[in-house]
Amino acid sequence: MAAKGIDFWFDFASTYSYPAMMRIETLAKAADVPVRFRPFLLGPIFKAQGWATSPFNLYPAKGQNMWRDLQRLCADLALPFRRPGIFPQNSLMAARVALAGLDAGWGEAFSRAVFQAEFADDRDIGDPVTLGEVLTGLRIDPQAALAEAQSDAIKARLRNETEEAQKLGVFGAPTFITPDGELFWGNDRLERAIAWARDGR
Amino acid sequence: MAAKGIDFWFDFASTYSYPAMMRIETLAKAADVPVRFRPFLLGPIFKAQGWATSPFNLYPAKGQNMWRDLQRLCADLALPFRRPGIFPQNSLMAARVALAGLDAGWGEAFSRAVFQAEFADDRDIGDPVTLGEVLTGLRIDPQAALAEAQSDAIKARLRNETEEAQKLGVFGAPTFITPDGELFWGNDRLERAIAWARDGR
Repeated sequence: MAAKGIDFWFDFASTYSYPAMMRIETLAKAADVPVRFRPFLLGPIFKAQGWATSPFNLYPAKGQNMWRDLQRLCADLALPFRRPGIFPQNSLMAARVALAGLDAGWGEAFSRAVFQAEFADDRDIGDPVTLGEVLTGLRIDPQAALAEAQSDAIKARLRNETEEAQKLGVFGAPTFITPDGELFWGNDRLERAIAWARDGR
Repeated sequence: MAAKGIDFWFDFASTYSYPAMMRIETLAKAADVPVRFRPFLLGPIFKAQGWATSPFNLYPAKGQNMWRDLQRLCADLALPFRRPGIFPQNSLMAARVALAGLDAGWGEAFSRAVFQAEFADDRDIGDPVTLGEVLTGLRIDPQAALAEAQSDAIKARLRNETEEAQKLGVFGAPTFITPDGELFWGNDRLERAIAWARDGR
């Protein structure tokens, strides 16, 4: 990573990762800050905290406000939004495909398209058929990509990435980490994280 | 409350209520939005969610980042900040005094001074001596104010306020609620809440 780059840790099941995903590249480019996509799984980190599912499901008042807040936020950003019928979605396969794609150069476009499928079009991203359609839309061979995503190497990579996130103190998504180790949590901190990466403070 | 006013729900033990408290009056005045202070207790609401203490203590990675984030945030806002030795602090008496003071016209100034004592000066706001000094600094008779705060009427008011907060869906602090019932959670939503109160959207 470039000296002033930023690591963008996200989970495809994370609601606030959606606006962050749709905003980060424009904002980072304007600040001349490179971005490294780091898909990971929040599930094991939540489980280590004693949560069997999303805290937005465990704590209904918090969850109800999150959906309303996300709706307001997307309206303010002119981002299409439809509340997914399934929440949280199974993000395992999407994360594996994204890791394969990041090696091959199409991981960023795939990641954006998956978030759009989930939060704009209410698609089930845990379904390989959805991921296949997303890949086809990007002119990527879905069979090859899905096979690569299920290789032992990619499976191990995703486990390692998730373990690294946990070691770095990641407890939610999206999270942004600068080269000097500053951790910023949440879509609300995206601008500040980019400024920190640019200025070193 | 005026038609376009905003209710500002806060707990004196809440960390992010500090920057919200120090910012709200300037921002609301600029937007011509009246603010109603609503001190309450998060403790009973957290207990109802199964939390015996602050989630920032229950989830260490989240708590560690909160302190760092608050430090960065206060630096950006040029707000003095010192991490309190005690967290969370006992906010019961401060909330009762604030309710008494809001009736008497000095509740807003008292609330600001308590947050400064806690987060800028690392004072123990659960100690009546601290509250007495805060009151003296505001030229308010501490003995009369502390006696009034322990009246049955004020004790009942604080219980009622906390119950109302819970009924309104408040799950954390600070929370801002507009006359049309929009609930905004967190210091990060202060600007948006004020704009909503002003514009009705």
